[in-house]
Amino acid sequence: MRVPSGGRLVKEVGEFPLIDMIDAVVGAPPSARLRVGIGDDAAVWRPRPGRDLVLSTDMLVQDVHFRLDWMDWQAIGHKALAANLSDLAAMGATPRLAFVSLGLVGSERDRQVTDLYRGMTALGRRFGVIVAGGDLSSSPGGVVVSVTVVGETPARRTVMTRAAARPGDIIGVTGPLGMAAAGLRVFQQQLLTIDGSPAMREAYSRPMPRVREGRLLVRSGVRAAMDLSDGLLGDLPKLCQASGVSAVIDVARVPIANAIKWNFSDWFDLGLRGGEDYELLFTAPPAVFARVCRAFRRAGLRGPWRIGEIVEAGKSGPEVKIREATGKVKPVEAGAYTHWG
Amino acid sequence: MRVPSGGRLVKEVGEFPLIDMIDAVVGAPPSARLRVGIGDDAAVWRPRPGRDLVLSTDMLVQDVHFRLDWMDWQAIGHKALAANLSDLAAMGATPRLAFVSLGLVGSERDRQVTDLYRGMTALGRRFGVIVAGGDLSSSPGGVVVSVTVVGETPARRTVMTRAAARPGDIIGVTGPLGMAAAGLRVFQQQLLTIDGSPAMREAYSRPMPRVREGRLLVRSGVRAAMDLSDGLLGDLPKLCQASGVSAVIDVARVPIANAIKWNFSDWFDLGLRGGEDYELLFTAPPAVFARVCRAFRRAGLRGPWRIGEIVEAGKSGPEVKIREATGKVKPVEAGAYTHWG
Repeated sequence: MRVPSGGRLVKEVGEFPLIDMIDAVVGAPPSARLRVGIGDDAAVWRPRPGRDLVLSTDMLVQDVHFRLDWMDWQAIGHKALAANLSDLAAMGATPRLAFVSLGLVGSERDRQVTDLYRGMTALGRRFGVIVAGGDLSSSPGGVVVSVTVVGETPARRTVMTRAAARPGDIIGVTGPLGMAAAGLRVFQQQLLTIDGSPAMREAYSRPMPRVREGRLLVRSGVRAAMDLSDGLLGDLPKLCQASGVSAVIDVARVPIANAIKWNFSDWFDLGLRGGEDYELLFTAPPAVFARVCRAFRRAGLRGPWRIGEIVEAGKSGPEVKIREATGKVKPVEAGAYTHWG
Repeated sequence: MRVPSGGRLVKEVGEFPLIDMIDAVVGAPPSARLRVGIGDDAAVWRPRPGRDLVLSTDMLVQDVHFRLDWMDWQAIGHKALAANLSDLAAMGATPRLAFVSLGLVGSERDRQVTDLYRGMTALGRRFGVIVAGGDLSSSPGGVVVSVTVVGETPARRTVMTRAAARPGDIIGVTGPLGMAAAGLRVFQQQLLTIDGSPAMREAYSRPMPRVREGRLLVRSGVRAAMDLSDGLLGDLPKLCQASGVSAVIDVARVPIANAIKWNFSDWFDLGLRGGEDYELLFTAPPAVFARVCRAFRRAGLRGPWRIGEIVEAGKSGPEVKIREATGKVKPVEAGAYTHWG
């Protein structure tokens, strides 16, 4: 019997052959460090003495985080891992292992499933990350990808957290904002021919986690960081809240691509409230910020962009304000992306 | 405004207040070992030198692994963690941390969500497990609970795997089989008044992972084990395949509760093919098996039950055979529970 080029239906292939297929794609043989990998009940990993482990988990759900008519399966795998690696990058950790739970309706094709893992391992390979285990499940309500990543960091080094911002710190971001939100808009409104559309779609479908940037930040002495998944005006208030400080954003300094400003009249909201950019937001004293700039330049990385500063919280508690080009400072409505809206 | 006793709708509460509510239930303050917990991008955990980490992940999906009209939310939380801890128990590891990704439709009540975490932390407390992080997501297609657990084991000790069974080994199980499958039947056919029904429903809704048993097994020198999630005749073939051996099961020795034999004419299939018992299946040379029996007795644990032995694989490769009470040995159809059936 000939197999159609698109592959076979998952429900016809069955769970265990599919696991073997995934194993063949992921292909991490046992080693001195990864002592047991895919195929057994759990993975066993021997961290070096003196290393801390950093773990994070993130779930992507069909029609919430991705649509099958917008993204190919490799992009779904890429994005699911990227969102997780971004969390480790925000701590300054070096990612090592990923565990993937995948819920499938059953009408998917096996090729699509292996494509998902291909997209995942291709991204993982860039950063030395191994998919070391997982679970497959039926999910009649739609595709669900849940990833847990494990990273490590030297035990002597302080990880970056949201709670370490201090008045006088400069606020920085590692890249331009709003491109992923613009990409989502491109898909939603089928604006496939507008100027900058390919880059916008790429930013939405295949965000690049700032792993190298995160490590350089922490090595340069940065103590406060988080990744931008819910938009600057969604995430910065969380950092301010956790640190007990306020923030002033210079709106003219926020890096927003011209393609966004030219194409969308609500470019301000796309840039400052748009989610899923996965750039890093960090704060540091001026001397440390200058060190970060030098480290980025030496490593051939763009940025960072200086977008404002941390100030003492006022009587009304931690808040985020906007400084307009005129110099006028005004409060801004915190705009976190929220589910079940 | 008065809050109705059942709590508020998740979609009305919003994501971040819900996270705070979960945090209040889970309540793991930072410590010397759990340096960063819930509320930041990732958790940081410092393992002791000389310890191996063991990680596993498992996803539960509404109407596949649980039904909201059969199980309360505490039981869902319990079962989601139990399925994961069972994987660590099968390796002989000591569980430490759990990470929980939860997808919600949005029409759930906040009390139900916190109940889920209550059920989870109640079980976790029995075994010293902390919920150290997670993710909340919208999931229009139904509730999804994805858990990743991290355990540890002394680096000098060999973990138990599926690949270590050898001819001459005795096959053992840590408890009676088929109760969870009988519980599922009770729910499906609404047999709530039959003899043994409460124990059957409990076995299905709140399985107890055999963490203590797993540690005693590995300490006694057992090298081959797995947990029974897909039924004896679904899982034993996987162990035989991984080890390159065959198995003979003494059907009269398999512990199946009388309540199952009395109530169900297909008790054989319930006992030998029924899934989700989460008992441990292991194999060991006779001297090691005897050591396990002594260790279990000293610890006040029931069992283990001796149900057969491992033999050389024949020409047709690894297979599972049944020895009937008459002594007649015959092949048996391997019956793995499979999704997308």
